[in-house]
Amino acid sequence: MDELVLSSLDQGVLTLTFNRPDRLNAWTDALGRRYFDLLEEAGKDPGVRAVVVTGAGKGFCAGADFETLGAIQSGAYAEEPDPRPNTFPTTIGKPVVAAVNGACAGLGMVHALVCDLVFTADDAKWTTAFARRGLIAEYGLSWVLPRLVGQQRAMDLLLSGRVFSGAEAYELGLVNRAVPADRLLAEAQAYARELAAHSSPASMAVIKRQVWHDWEVTLAESARTAIGEMLASFGRPDFAEGVASFLERRPPRFPPL
Amino acid sequence: MDELVLSSLDQGVLTLTFNRPDRLNAWTDALGRRYFDLLEEAGKDPGVRAVVVTGAGKGFCAGADFETLGAIQSGAYAEEPDPRPNTFPTTIGKPVVAAVNGACAGLGMVHALVCDLVFTADDAKWTTAFARRGLIAEYGLSWVLPRLVGQQRAMDLLLSGRVFSGAEAYELGLVNRAVPADRLLAEAQAYARELAAHSSPASMAVIKRQVWHDWEVTLAESARTAIGEMLASFGRPDFAEGVASFLERRPPRFPPL
Amino acid sequence: MDELVLSSLDQGVLTLTFNRPDRLNAWTDALGRRYFDLLEEAGKDPGVRAVVVTGAGKGFCAGADFETLGAIQSGAYAEEPDPRPNTFPTTIGKPVVAAVNGACAGLGMVHALVCDLVFTADDAKWTTAFARRGLIAEYGLSWVLPRLVGQQRAMDLLLSGRVFSGAEAYELGLVNRAVPADRLLAEAQAYARELAAHSSPASMAVIKRQVWHDWEVTLAESARTAIGEMLASFGRPDFAEGVASFLERRPPRFPPL
Repeated sequence: MDELVLSSLDQGVLTLTFNRPDRLNAWTDALGRRYFDLLEEAGKDPGVRAVVVTGAGKGFCAGADFETLGAIQSGAYAEEPDPRPNTFPTTIGKPVVAAVNGACAGLGMVHALVCDLVFTADDAKWTTAFARRGLIAEYGLSWVLPRLVGQQRAMDLLLSGRVFSGAEAYELGLVNRAVPADRLLAEAQAYARELAAHSSPASMAVIKRQVWHDWEVTLAESARTAIGEMLASFGRPDFAEGVASFLERRPPRFPPL
Repeated sequence: MDELVLSSLDQGVLTLTFNRPDRLNAWTDALGRRYFDLLEEAGKDPGVRAVVVTGAGKGFCAGADFETLGAIQSGAYAEEPDPRPNTFPTTIGKPVVAAVNGACAGLGMVHALVCDLVFTADDAKWTTAFARRGLIAEYGLSWVLPRLVGQQRAMDLLLSGRVFSGAEAYELGLVNRAVPADRLLAEAQAYARELAAHSSPASMAVIKRQVWHDWEVTLAESARTAIGEMLASFGRPDFAEGVASFLERRPPRFPPL
Repeated sequence: MDELVLSSLDQGVLTLTFNRPDRLNAWTDALGRRYFDLLEEAGKDPGVRAVVVTGAGKGFCAGADFETLGAIQSGAYAEEPDPRPNTFPTTIGKPVVAAVNGACAGLGMVHALVCDLVFTADDAKWTTAFARRGLIAEYGLSWVLPRLVGQQRAMDLLLSGRVFSGAEAYELGLVNRAVPADRLLAEAQAYARELAAHSSPASMAVIKRQVWHDWEVTLAESARTAIGEMLASFGRPDFAEGVASFLERRPPRFPPL
């Protein structure tokens, strides 16, 4: 069971790997539960400062498992759903970087795009797929996509369900970086190590909350809330250390979250 | 009267053509009424799966007709306004693809950008124009533009009223595709035919509503609503056909909306 | 004191220059107060039609002054805060164009991105910096950034605090234009002069309010409000002059705001 998602920690960076390579890591309830459990632990573990999520083998996540879909169709599906919504990664206080190594379809795309940053192999195959299966924009993808690339490009990807490459995903503005597949994981981990080494964990937790939350408020409210957060930050050791390390031109030693 | 907007149906794709070529298809109440009537019919017609909108002659739509503007200025204007707002195309359950073949100014730009997708000739001349006529960002353009290209680029286009090409519109992120003028209509129709052939009409209707609507809600609400829509989709024949056609590696035969 | 921000008016364009070049124009309360006073006057001055904001010397604004931060840390800080929020430039009725000539960090980036348009030197060094100092996304930056470049790119810039060039800022969609440093101010001023010469001041005031405000409303509300604004514009001399100058193919003579 634990093998459904592999986990390894190095220099403050936890790498989680979806591990059903024979199924292109198609999503099952058990895999999702394990993934969210590991994220939840990562949120509490002082040794974890950033998380990278990737897939074993040739895919990132090919979407919902077809056996699950078949069971739903036949009425045989009877799992108790996980109470944690698919947007769960947005709620943990540490940055989550998706490293999309290959096929990223349907529900797999949802899981990639609710990560805070997304790196992709430039030859990875992406597709929303839903409209071609008689399904709809699942689990908030119709919220996330337009806020990344505008409503028109979101419509193109969602209505057509066409396949597009990681390179096009970058050109569309859908991902932070597209790189050759053989360098993808190393680049995502190097980026995450930079966050672990140079960014205050307390700052990252607040900033992540601000960015996801501020879609819901006015500019004036955002600015007002930020003043409260700024005053709180003045009282944390991270601020003293951030200023001191800058003036002393040395790497910071921020406390864990 | 019917000739104000031409209409032709081919392989599930309805092409509507603004037809006042001697006036670069400048907008009149009569033309607008005819256009919206045809869209409304298309929404109900089981033979229509996607709509392409373009202009006859050298322009797409040069904006409000100057005779109308003159009548407004002199107080002689007395038309009963159409109760359907200019955002009407966002409310019909089928995808509407604008094919901007030439001049696209002021009100014409509003009508292009409330379509779900926009293709443009790379040499088409675009301009908001309003600020240069003493007018304002009309009919929701100040809502649509920032959600396509951000507030700064929206400000540039709206405050300056400068003319820009279809190629720049693409670079700004304002349109899905910019192509040579002589291939524009064929490419837009081919794209729409793909939607008609491969995407479930029921899925497209739901997804279109989700994308336009989800600007108004939180991510959590969007994800919750999507679960209801997903459960509803499980009960439709489109889901069975979408899965079956995928597994059987054949084109789908989705029922009309 | 007046020398903290230089001010000069030419052809309707007011250029404001942050003037603490020995400190890369680091922000102090006194500098901010002077800047906002000048903006407030510009809002009322019939001779000003557009504003350009830049920095003296090698920087635009390197962020909060370290002496101020030091005083905050030691508890010695006792300034009465300016009641005008950092988003004040969004509230004056004239376009404000930032010309980011060099270092643009932390609070400096906030001040650049609440301008209506942003031009940058392609070699200017930009950074949010906050997470590296133990601080948070200040004064609304977590609202502004995602609406310019999407939540992912905002996360990258805010979580990492990495330095990026003006050229990358353009590639990310963060600014309107990136140009060689030696042409920056001339280009920003030329753009502002175009606004002053060709765009109605009344139109620009309404449009600017619409764009910032319409992030807070639905498309339907935006379209409804725009109808009221349009009817009001029909009654202003700017509309008559805008139509007349267009038909007579001559430059417009719009009245001041």
